[in-house]
Amino acid sequence: MKPVKAVVFDLYGTLYDVHSVARQCSGFYPGRGLEISAMWRQKQLEYTWLRTLMGQYLSFEAATEDALVFTCRQLKLALDDKTRATLCDAYLHLQPHPEVPAALSALQRCGLPLAILSNGSVHSIDSVVGNSGLRHHFAELISVDSVRLFKPHTKVYELAETRLGLHRSDILFVSSNAWDAAGARHFGFPVCWINRAGNSFDELGVQPDMTATSMDALPGLVDRQAGAA
Amino acid sequence: MKPVKAVVFDLYGTLYDVHSVARQCSGFYPGRGLEISAMWRQKQLEYTWLRTLMGQYLSFEAATEDALVFTCRQLKLALDDKTRATLCDAYLHLQPHPEVPAALSALQRCGLPLAILSNGSVHSIDSVVGNSGLRHHFAELISVDSVRLFKPHTKVYELAETRLGLHRSDILFVSSNAWDAAGARHFGFPVCWINRAGNSFDELGVQPDMTATSMDALPGLVDRQAGAA
Repeated sequence: MKPVKAVVFDLYGTLYDVHSVARQCSGFYPGRGLEISAMWRQKQLEYTWLRTLMGQYLSFEAATEDALVFTCRQLKLALDDKTRATLCDAYLHLQPHPEVPAALSALQRCGLPLAILSNGSVHSIDSVVGNSGLRHHFAELISVDSVRLFKPHTKVYELAETRLGLHRSDILFVSSNAWDAAGARHFGFPVCWINRAGNSFDELGVQPDMTATSMDALPGLVDRQAGAA
Repeated sequence: MKPVKAVVFDLYGTLYDVHSVARQCSGFYPGRGLEISAMWRQKQLEYTWLRTLMGQYLSFEAATEDALVFTCRQLKLALDDKTRATLCDAYLHLQPHPEVPAALSALQRCGLPLAILSNGSVHSIDSVVGNSGLRHHFAELISVDSVRLFKPHTKVYELAETRLGLHRSDILFVSSNAWDAAGARHFGFPVCWINRAGNSFDELGVQPDMTATSMDALPGLVDRQAGAA
């Protein structure tokens, strides 16, 4: 693999822990937080894929709210307007994974521009990154909103090339979501899969170029690449 | 709703029980059959959606095999070539849901042409329908293969209009898969959702025109419609 000229991150699940909302869920539904957050996340993803296939785009926030409504109905849990608003708001205050702030600082010292390419709307990405105090690390925050399609549609990954003015082969794409890493690899990015949970990589016809168990490994991988140039 | 001129069925899950493979799974992996068949089915669906979004179509049989390979790897179960071939073959010998044969006979007496529109390849649909002895009920077996996209992509539903020579508003679409029923409804079919499991309907911006707990109800619903004409 040749040295890269920029690093682009997925946001939900990769930099930020989507299951950090489980705590808020537990507050409203004691003992059910992890169950709710797991089904909520699964349905949120399914709704982005299905809406794109149906040609019925709606914002990530709206898909997130729809997924929460389904989850509570399926689990036979009452969901009043206030609870719904509070839980959806929790998605604007996600916690970064613990190692992320230090890893971003170390990566910045490598001198490469860093960016985010996310299913979230401009507002959601701004909020999550701003609320966690990590905004200064990123040269670009790129939302799918302008193409009205969700990952892993090819046109979403093209946005990173356009916004960074770089060819796909010069951009390292980093994701914890195997389906996102596979979509990015099919597109032509070099890809690092962050596999914190010890999962198997999805069988989608490609493998990631690199796999790491956390973001801690990333500065070393990028540095070694630069050293090999 | 105006009277319809044809009835089009989804195959996997609607006419045929995808979890009938659980028995064969249990034969190879005692006590794990339901767990395997549930993850296998979920991943099979995800892979059809993701492959379509990535522009990386492959046949339904290949997606089914990929999903089985992932499932066994994720569950840390060994999968040799013979087991893999035997389990994938089970998808060509799915059992119809118990009420289906009688419901199809009763529907045929209503005088409407019946058809299948499925993610399966021509070979898969032929095999499943032929092996279960239900071929004579159907005027058309329609596969996504010719458009190289999976449901719920709009172009798949268009195939039913083309093959039956009818407008979408004249075709009753029947599916047990809420995401498929929602895709068909967005497309413009009148839709009956068969909800055998007592699930909530997915939050995808539409509702089915009719819901039934089994196919038993379908001849009566179609008849009442004809009577109302």
